[in-house]
Amino acid sequence: MKTKVAIQGIRGSFHHLVAQEYFHDGVDVHECLSFDKLVDSLLDKTCGMAVMAIENSIAGSIIPNYALIDANHLHIIGEHYINIHQNLMALKGQEIEDINEVYSHPMALLQTKEFFKKYPHIKLIEDADTAEVAQRIHEQQLDGVGAVASYAAAKMYDLEILGPEIQTIKNNATRFVIVQTKNSAIPEDEINKASLKFELDHKRGSLATILNVMSDCRMNLTKIQSLPIIETPWKYSFFVDVTFEKYSDFEKAKSVLEIMAEHFKVLGEYKNARL
Amino acid sequence: MKTKVAIQGIRGSFHHLVAQEYFHDGVDVHECLSFDKLVDSLLDKTCGMAVMAIENSIAGSIIPNYALIDANHLHIIGEHYINIHQNLMALKGQEIEDINEVYSHPMALLQTKEFFKKYPHIKLIEDADTAEVAQRIHEQQLDGVGAVASYAAAKMYDLEILGPEIQTIKNNATRFVIVQTKNSAIPEDEINKASLKFELDHKRGSLATILNVMSDCRMNLTKIQSLPIIETPWKYSFFVDVTFEKYSDFEKAKSVLEIMAEHFKVLGEYKNARL
Repeated sequence: MKTKVAIQGIRGSFHHLVAQEYFHDGVDVHECLSFDKLVDSLLDKTCGMAVMAIENSIAGSIIPNYALIDANHLHIIGEHYINIHQNLMALKGQEIEDINEVYSHPMALLQTKEFFKKYPHIKLIEDADTAEVAQRIHEQQLDGVGAVASYAAAKMYDLEILGPEIQTIKNNATRFVIVQTKNSAIPEDEINKASLKFELDHKRGSLATILNVMSDCRMNLTKIQSLPIIETPWKYSFFVDVTFEKYSDFEKAKSVLEIMAEHFKVLGEYKNARL
Repeated sequence: MKTKVAIQGIRGSFHHLVAQEYFHDGVDVHECLSFDKLVDSLLDKTCGMAVMAIENSIAGSIIPNYALIDANHLHIIGEHYINIHQNLMALKGQEIEDINEVYSHPMALLQTKEFFKKYPHIKLIEDADTAEVAQRIHEQQLDGVGAVASYAAAKMYDLEILGPEIQTIKNNATRFVIVQTKNSAIPEDEINKASLKFELDHKRGSLATILNVMSDCRMNLTKIQSLPIIETPWKYSFFVDVTFEKYSDFEKAKSVLEIMAEHFKVLGEYKNARL
């Protein structure tokens, strides 16, 4: 039996696209309308794996998703990048002047707000999923309503693209991670990236000391993000991604970090997808 | 003539509360329904200053607001922290069972989603501003509709609180910055915090080296955030906040960073509000 893969959104969403590219076309997806439901589907074993957006060029890290991975002890076993192309679409035979309301995911609206400045008559309304709006326009045959979604969604729900590639930043790479409840079984020689979390006191130089150790162990930082720990003033948690050439170097870094940092945790070990 | 202060949202919003606390009660606020409009009101000189949410405990940094400050060459001249208390409110005389739809800002819904899990009959709908929903319920006398907003909004728009303090995290500190188009005129001996931005190559140890220098210059890091630079693969920009005791130490750090980091920029020098 094939493993079911949970995606945020419905078929035609960007998560669906990532699932198809990462697991190839025959993937059996489970549509979830929130990241909470996506995690639930892993915990109750409806799904074996899930695809989750984790950062993009405009909004940075999606911290609530890091928190979900951390709190539910999920393991990152892979990553995948896609360039997000947003398109304005509506029922066929309409012009952009006929559109009064456009619905989409808040992130999609953020990515395309420059385009809509030219059309002040259009009201922008936030919705749960990009593709779901496209589906709704199709099923209810909604005149005057637009969706901002993927090319795949336009095709799937028979809509016409009135504005192609309307995202402000043309190379808008979004990073997704593949998560599961069990640790990965990737062979060590294929692992060259890891996501880490640790805590530090607010003491001058404490982060510099940790980064020196990582650098000594030949770790390259590809991402760092601090977050104050709410319950404990002056303590910070750090989410750090590192790439490395040799797994033995990473093992050494892990041993040192376990001693030097508090609550050190490996969120995942996987293959770097950005080469 | 008093300086007009731009806020995101309307009177009764959390930005309004911050403006009142920071500038004291007589502040003359200008209501803006987006952060873009808030920046516009500074650039066209409608307002002399603006209040802008910049990070919170749940979502981390609000990167699009950092980008607005950076791109429009605004200066951070102060900061202010408040604990966000979210309340469910509706027209008087209703029970929570009578409420079918609740509207609020996406961040407010994110902060209160645990509470609403107990009430699956309520549909959560994202809106532009917390207080504006409260105002709408009051003006249109909307039965069955709830808002998630501040206590001040409930009082201002004559609504009854059906759920007090419903945010999941009880000490949900949100950090706001005060920005203007001109550099600050704060005396040097009152400045003990700064927000910096710089770029680095993806080279092993490059960030560690910079942090070592900062530590040598007696800078304490209170926040760090990396962001890939879209147009330039393998380059990263960093947003860093530092606190310090002596302005002369900070001047030394600035001189070194100008040499060692690329595109080094001071986004603001101000007084630390978190003691």
